[in-house]
This record gives sequence, C-alpha cells and structure tokens, in this order.
Amino acid sequence: MNAAALWTRLAGARVFDLEQPRFAGMPIHPAHKPGYHYGLHRRHRDTYRPERFGPRSGSSGILTMMEHSGTHIDALCHQACDLQFYRGVAVDKTERSDGYTEYGAETIAPLLARGVLLDIAGWKQVDRLPPNYAITAEDLDGCARHATIEVRPGDVLLVRTGFASAWQDEAAYLNAAGVSKSGNLWTAERRVRAVGADNMAWDCMTEKDPDTNMVLFGHAHLLVTHGIHIIENLVLDELAASGHREFCFVGVPLKFRGATGSPIRPLALVD
Amino acid sequence: MNAAALWTRLAGARVFDLEQPRFAGMPIHPAHKPGYHYGLHRRHRDTYRPERFGPRSGSSGILTMMEHSGTHIDALCHQACDLQFYRGVAVDKTERSDGYTEYGAETIAPLLARGVLLDIAGWKQVDRLPPNYAITAEDLDGCARHATIEVRPGDVLLVRTGFASAWQDEAAYLNAAGVSKSGNLWTAERRVRAVGADNMAWDCMTEKDPDTNMVLFGHAHLLVTHGIHIIENLVLDELAASGHREFCFVGVPLKFRGATGSPIRPLALVD
Amino acid sequence: MNAAALWTRLAGARVFDLEQPRFAGMPIHPAHKPGYHYGLHRRHRDTYRPERFGPRSGSSGILTMMEHSGTHIDALCHQACDLQFYRGVAVDKTERSDGYTEYGAETIAPLLARGVLLDIAGWKQVDRLPPNYAITAEDLDGCARHATIEVRPGDVLLVRTGFASAWQDEAAYLNAAGVSKSGNLWTAERRVRAVGADNMAWDCMTEKDPDTNMVLFGHAHLLVTHGIHIIENLVLDELAASGHREFCFVGVPLKFRGATGSPIRPLALVD
Amino acid sequence: MNAAALWTRLAGARVFDLEQPRFAGMPIHPAHKPGYHYGLHRRHRDTYRPERFGPRSGSSGILTMMEHSGTHIDALCHQACDLQFYRGVAVDKTERSDGYTEYGAETIAPLLARGVLLDIAGWKQVDRLPPNYAITAEDLDGCARHATIEVRPGDVLLVRTGFASAWQDEAAYLNAAGVSKSGNLWTAERRVRAVGADNMAWDCMTEKDPDTNMVLFGHAHLLVTHGIHIIENLVLDELAASGHREFCFVGVPLKFRGATGSPIRPLALVD
Repeated sequence: MNAAALWTRLAGARVFDLEQPRFAGMPIHPAHKPGYHYGLHRRHRDTYRPERFGPRSGSSGILTMMEHSGTHIDALCHQACDLQFYRGVAVDKTERSDGYTEYGAETIAPLLARGVLLDIAGWKQVDRLPPNYAITAEDLDGCARHATIEVRPGDVLLVRTGFASAWQDEAAYLNAAGVSKSGNLWTAERRVRAVGADNMAWDCMTEKDPDTNMVLFGHAHLLVTHGIHIIENLVLDELAASGHREFCFVGVPLKFRGATGSPIRPLALVD
Repeated sequence: MNAAALWTRLAGARVFDLEQPRFAGMPIHPAHKPGYHYGLHRRHRDTYRPERFGPRSGSSGILTMMEHSGTHIDALCHQACDLQFYRGVAVDKTERSDGYTEYGAETIAPLLARGVLLDIAGWKQVDRLPPNYAITAEDLDGCARHATIEVRPGDVLLVRTGFASAWQDEAAYLNAAGVSKSGNLWTAERRVRAVGADNMAWDCMTEKDPDTNMVLFGHAHLLVTHGIHIIENLVLDELAASGHREFCFVGVPLKFRGATGSPIRPLALVD
Repeated sequence: MNAAALWTRLAGARVFDLEQPRFAGMPIHPAHKPGYHYGLHRRHRDTYRPERFGPRSGSSGILTMMEHSGTHIDALCHQACDLQFYRGVAVDKTERSDGYTEYGAETIAPLLARGVLLDIAGWKQVDRLPPNYAITAEDLDGCARHATIEVRPGDVLLVRTGFASAWQDEAAYLNAAGVSKSGNLWTAERRVRAVGADNMAWDCMTEKDPDTNMVLFGHAHLLVTHGIHIIENLVLDELAASGHREFCFVGVPLKFRGATGSPIRPLALVD
Repeated sequence: MNAAALWTRLAGARVFDLEQPRFAGMPIHPAHKPGYHYGLHRRHRDTYRPERFGPRSGSSGILTMMEHSGTHIDALCHQACDLQFYRGVAVDKTERSDGYTEYGAETIAPLLARGVLLDIAGWKQVDRLPPNYAITAEDLDGCARHATIEVRPGDVLLVRTGFASAWQDEAAYLNAAGVSKSGNLWTAERRVRAVGADNMAWDCMTEKDPDTNMVLFGHAHLLVTHGIHIIENLVLDELAASGHREFCFVGVPLKFRGATGSPIRPLALVD
C-alpha cells in the first residue's frame, strides 16, 4: 500500500464534524467560568494606509479561554485520586504555576483510531434522554447489542445523549444526561483509548458514588485509574442520523504545555 | 472499500507531528504580543477533601492567547486588500467586536489532503537558510524538480526553511527565511488549498513588494486574491529527514467563531 | 497654612469607602461580560526552597477584566454622539487597537472635590427604589431641598437608589433604579464635574428618550455634551446612614492608556 | 473644623501624580510577564445606528493584567516566610484558586498619611543612581539628615533612585538601584506604614542576603515581619524637583478580592 491511497481515501471520505461552535455565551461548567471570550481588537482600517503600505491590511484579536470550554479533551493531569495521577505520579511533584510537568495536554498523542457510537437516545427512541439521566452498563450493553456493534480495546467510544441541540441553552445543557458509575465500569473494562459524549462532563453530574461520596466517578475511574481520555461537548446528531456506528475517528489535541486539557475538533470519517 | 480499512490504515500510519509546543516564551510576532499565557489556578489540593468528597480532585487553568500564536492557520478574514476579503466581501459589513461574520476560523473546513514538502534548506544543503532569505519561484521549482515531486491543485504545500530549531530563540526565529513575491506567485498558480512553513509569517518578512509598497505580499496574494490558507510555525525537520516528500496531510482548525485564525496541530501521515 | 495640617486633617478624617468588592460573580452589564476573573497561579509553595533561597516565597495571579466592571469611572472616549466625542473630537481619528489617543482613562484628573449625596431612596423612605424606577428632576430637586443641600459647579454628585445591597444578586441589580432624562438635564445644568450612583449605569436602563430613540440618555448628555464623568456601582449606604450630605470626595482613576474607563475606589471624607 | 474646609483644602492643593502610565510595553518583572494588555474590541461604529437608536454609541475593551504590573502596591499575602504571612497566618489555610482569604488587596485600607521623600539620587547629585546600586541605611540616614526631615511612625516613605525616566526602556529599568538589607532594617525600625520607590521591586534586585541566601530581603522584612506595604514603579521626579520633602500622601488600592496586590495611582499633595 502507498501513501497516495491514504490521502485519496481521506480526501474522499465523508466527514462528520463533531465540534460545537465556540462563542461567548456557549454553555460553560460552573467550575470553568467565564470560559470563553474573543475580542477583535486589531481591525483592518487600523493599518490600512494604501498610499504608504499598499492595499493590504491585517486584523486579529485576543482569546481568553479556559481549557475546559467548548469541545475539548481532558489531559491525565486534570484529575487525581488521593493526589496521585494515573500510574501513581504524584501531584505535588508535577504541579507548577504554568501547568504540570507530566500528563499535560502536550502529552496526548493524536487520536487516529476506530470510533464507535452508542446512540443511547436513538436506541431509546427519544430526541433527548431525560435531564440528568444516568446511563447504565445495561444501557450501553443493550444499545451495542441492538446495533450489533462491538466495543474493542483501543477504540474511541462515543455516547449520545441527544443534548447537543441544547448548546444555545446553558441551563438545559448543564442538566444533560450522562454516564453512570456502572456505565463507567463497563466502559473501562473494554479498554478503550478515549471516550466522549454530547454533554458537559461525560459523567452524570448529579450522581454520587455511594462507596466514596465522589461525584464524577468516571473522571476518577477513566482518567486516573485507567488513563482513558474524556472528550466533552461533542455534536453527535448528524453522525447518529447517518446510521454509521463505526467510523474512523480523528482527534488532534493541541500541545498546550502543562495544561489540563485542550480544545479539539474531532472528526468521524467514513468511506 | 469499507470504513474498517480506513481506521486500520490511519492507525497504522507513521505520524509526523508538525506542531511546535506551546508555552509562554515561545516566539511571538510583534503584532501579536503578548501572544500566550497559561496560568494554572485550580490546583488539586484546593478541592481535595477525601472525608467528604472521596479521593477525587480536579485542576484547571486559564489561557490568554492571540489566535496567531504558535502553530496556527490564518482564516480568510485575517487579511484584506482595499478593505475587501476574498471574492470581494467587504470588511465593513462583516467586522464585529467579537469577530467577523464571514470567513472566520469556524469556516475553515478540515484539511484532509495530499501534502507536499519542498525542503529548500535541505535542497541547498544547509541546516537553515540565511536569515531573512527570500525563497524565489526558481528555488521552489528547482527543489520540486530535484525531488521529482509535482505540486498539484488542492494540495497542502509545505516549505522548509530550517528555522523550526530556533523556536527557543525569538530573535533568531523572527529573522527566519520566508517566501518571496515570486515564490508566492508560483505557489498560487499551482492552485494549492493551503500552504505552510516553519517560520513566523510564511512570507519573507523583510521583503517589500516594489509595485505596491506592501510587506507580506503572500498574505495578500494567497489569502485575499486566491483564498489559500496559510499555516505558520510548523516543525518540518523530522518529516524532511524521513525523506518523504508527499504524504497525507491532516489539519483541523478549531471553530472559534469570527476569529481571524486558529491554533492547529497538523499531522503528516505516511503508510 | 502648611502641608502638615493637610495630612493631619486627612489622617484624622472619617473615611467612607464607596467601592464594591471585586470578585468573579459580581454583577456585570451584559455588554461587558464576562467582566472579571482573577486566577492565582503562582503559589507560595512553588518557589519555597528554604535550603537554597531562604525562607521567602512569593505569589501572584492574573486578572482578566473589562474596564467597566465593578466600581468604575467612564472616560470621555466611552461614549460618542454621531461619532464625535466631547468638544467634537472625531472617533475615527482617535480609535486604535489599543484604545483612544484622546480622552482615554489616563486623561482623567484625580477627583478631589466637594461631594454631595442625594439619597433618593432615603428621602422616599424606602430601602430601595422600585426596580427600573426613573429618578426625575423633581426627585433630585425635592431631595436636595429637603436636605437643604445645594449642588454646585465642580461638585461630584452622588445619587443613591438603595441597590448597592443587591451586589450579590445580578438579576436584581441589573434592574436597579436610575436617573431619567429630566434628571440628567437637571444634573448637567448644575455643571458638576462628575456624577455617580449605586447602580450599573447611572441612567435608568429601561428608559428610552422619545426624541432620539436613545437609551442611556445621560451617557450622551453628560459624557459627550458636557464632559461630565460618570461613576458606577458605588456603595452609598453607610454614607447615607451617617447623615452626611456633603463631604470631601476623593476618586483617583488609573492611567490605563487609551482605555474607556478605569476601576476606582472612591472615598468620602468628613472631619 | 468642618468638612467644607477639607474639600477646599484638597481642591486647592498642588497635586503630584506619582503613577507611571500603563501600556503594553511598559517594563514588567520577569515573574509577572506578560504583565499588561488592553485590547479595544467594542468600537463606536459597531453600535452606531442613528436611524434606530439615536446618535449615541459606546466603546470598551478588555484588560489582561498581572496585579504586579505598573505602579502598584503589594498586599500582605504577596510574600511569606516559611509559608507564613504577617503575624503567623498560614499560607496553606488561606490559599485558593481565586486568591487568599486573608491579606488580599481588598484588606489594604486607603493610605491617607504623611508622606516623606528621601531623594537619594538628588542628594548624591546624580540623575540616576548607578545600575543595581544598593541604597544603604547610611544613605537613607544621610539623605534624611541633609534634608532635615524626620521619618515617623505611620508615614509613607518614598525613596527616589532616579530610574522613573527609564520607563520606556525595560532593560535599563530592570537594573534600577534599590534598597539594601541595611536600608530595609533602617526603614522597618521607623515603623512606617508603607514604602515606595521609583523602581521595579523597591529592593535592590541583585543583592542576596548572606544570612539566608534570600533575594528581595525587604519583601520579607517589610511585608512579612512588619506588615509594611510596598509600592513599586512610582514617578518621583517632579515631586523631587519641587523641593517638597514632606507632603500629604493619598493612595487608594482597589479591592480585588484575594489578589496579591493592586494597581494604584498615588498622589502627593501640598498646600
């Protein structure tokens, strides 16, 4: 096989764009407020002096942004258990004013992998799951069986709640359905490389683990125990509607040194 | 062919990472200072209360960033000629406090295309081209012939100056070689979809177009006249050393609504 | 008289602090969102290395802030009528990416002047005026007469609505009472140097001038027509309760070059 | 005496403005880079719609700022010794993502006090002291004696190095003269309330305390041991030239909750 075929294949693939648009006013998790602001400050007329500099002018702005705003991927330094990261790396030895010396966003390799969609909302024949619904292992398993799709080691597993359409409505969006503890255990057993959902936190944000009192169980179980990255705020509607349940997943985080996550624009490609 | 083959191909490809690392202190163009800052403010010990909330803790920071810092791609609204963008769209009708209503970064489609590398430094058998050297049409043509590589419509054309290794030295990096007017004319004739280089501005920053008095001729000629995107601050050394001159280019800008560019982590894939 | 007496007088004066506390979550005008964020990123343990550097350590953070957040004063470049500032200075000739070349915050002289308080809420014997109540010329005049206080040229005139106590409740605060068109005409006639109120915009935000269709009539009439500065988000409760209606006003804006306003911590001093 | 006299006195006083102008490009301490940026993003033409909204338009920007940029005052939480602040308050109990729960900038009372200027450069008959010159106790004492000025408890003590004129030249400014260890011991003995200088750090930045290995001895000795605030980046040239050595000092920090300092525009008033 040669490279030519590869770019021809990619250029010819159908591309599903899984990123939400980024703008001031998009839903932001309370811990990550204000989240996002872009101000255009250099405008074209500012430097337009045709008699001296010719016809060309430039423009640009300034972004102020939490790394957990918009569609993004969590780095392994984002979460710790008992002040240890994945594989026992100590928080205290790696925490700096400008980020972490280990497991920062720059350490996330590009994700070029088999992607699998479990469309829980579609399987349950609803536009959206109920607010704060906790998706169980049984849900994931049932949906996968129904679609006759297998989740395999190394996959990127995407779970659809139907809440992407609430992106203009922060209050509704922050009450999205998410994955329960049992769902997270099921997921980790499948040894996927990364997971993602069309909600703010992957996890069901209102569920508390009775054993530890922890909220966001999956953040601990996936990122810390298993080193599985989490992608949040995906758009999965068009992909779900297309009927594709397996696809080529392309997700390329930015190398923000030491940061606890990165914005990302994931793509699902099918021939 | 089916999707399965596609992810297998991608997962098995050799991946060249063309992005520079992002950190405060990386070289920044004077017009885009201060460029980049990441401050970690939520630290793990801040929320670590095991007796009440279990073992889990989270951490995150705040990014302040010009969209033209680090490895990035220019949106078509970044440059204008006589206050018009590509295809005559008027600056004045589209300029807002929060960006442009047309040609913002969110309008750049993912780049999944044939990529071509013209390693000018390597062809001239130098580690780096001389400071501020202006790469001519003859250089591009000669290098392409020597490598027996053809630049085709729709390609992403990458040009190597050798200055990526000066990424820790702003003064040296800002004097990188770049593409001359003749090189830009040659490039546009080939109807590529995007270009990129391992320097700050693609163009030779010290060259002034004698016909218009304009600096950064290519910014006008490519972005405004031809709608060809420009990618800056690439790392091309490992790709060049590998000997590959054509490859599958993967570059996925973020949808910062109305912004004049986006950070990007481009990849070159070969089987 | 000599300087010694001056500092003795000031050091002995009773000081009323008229500034609201600044924190993420304080009320912000929709046009100035997100308004305010402070992230502590350099922490003491980061640099604490007693064996090498001795016992000392330092800490600091990063502020992201709109200049119209919190208690602040408007510069004359903040508002224009028909694209002209006070005294006919043209917007287009003074607007830059980094602010205005005239009438920026750095041009506001320190305010050391007679201050006068018209406590409209107190005069009407209510804790707060009704939401969006528009304070009329008759209100200002009646309150001044009742307090037998004269508003004189060069004064700083403060008007109390009673809404400072809603500083923890953005929804309530954004519906504060404010000064009506007639109140602004009355104010300008008195040729005061600056005005201030315990609300977001000085003006009644829901009132529209029937003659021009303009909201925030006072912003045009005071800043543009008369060159009178406006101070917003004051705390006037303790001052009002003290019974003082005239005092020494001390307000010192910061010289943010070209900015359209400045945070300020005004003081009212009485012997 | 009544309040009327107070405002008349203040309004009639000669005012020396001790604040440097604030702009991107002013000198910034390496630990506080990038320090300062103001971007104007809402411009007047953006909202100017006279036919619909009348003649008025507004404009504003976004500030990104370290609290230790420009002329500013240090809060007591800025410095610690052995992880304790002034009076033994523990760093670990007060440090939060959004600042300190004790000794933040909001706790600094307005400074209305006797001010004293020790013009060391003038006394030594030089425009500027030599780069990195360390001002000794003998210098302070000799200068005070020569000026027959006494430094008293509760004063604000200002020390002039002559480096304010290097505000456009960061390299020169960062090598300003400053106060030595002996000078800091002398200062603290006088039980002043605050100190300030026309340099980046008050202290001589190149001096290391031989007993502890500490740089910035005064930051520990004044802020931590004695609770004396430090003001940096003052302009003292006009005040020095006026011949006034005692004056009424007015300095009003902003209440940035939890922040380690505040920008400030100090004034020196003389009758």
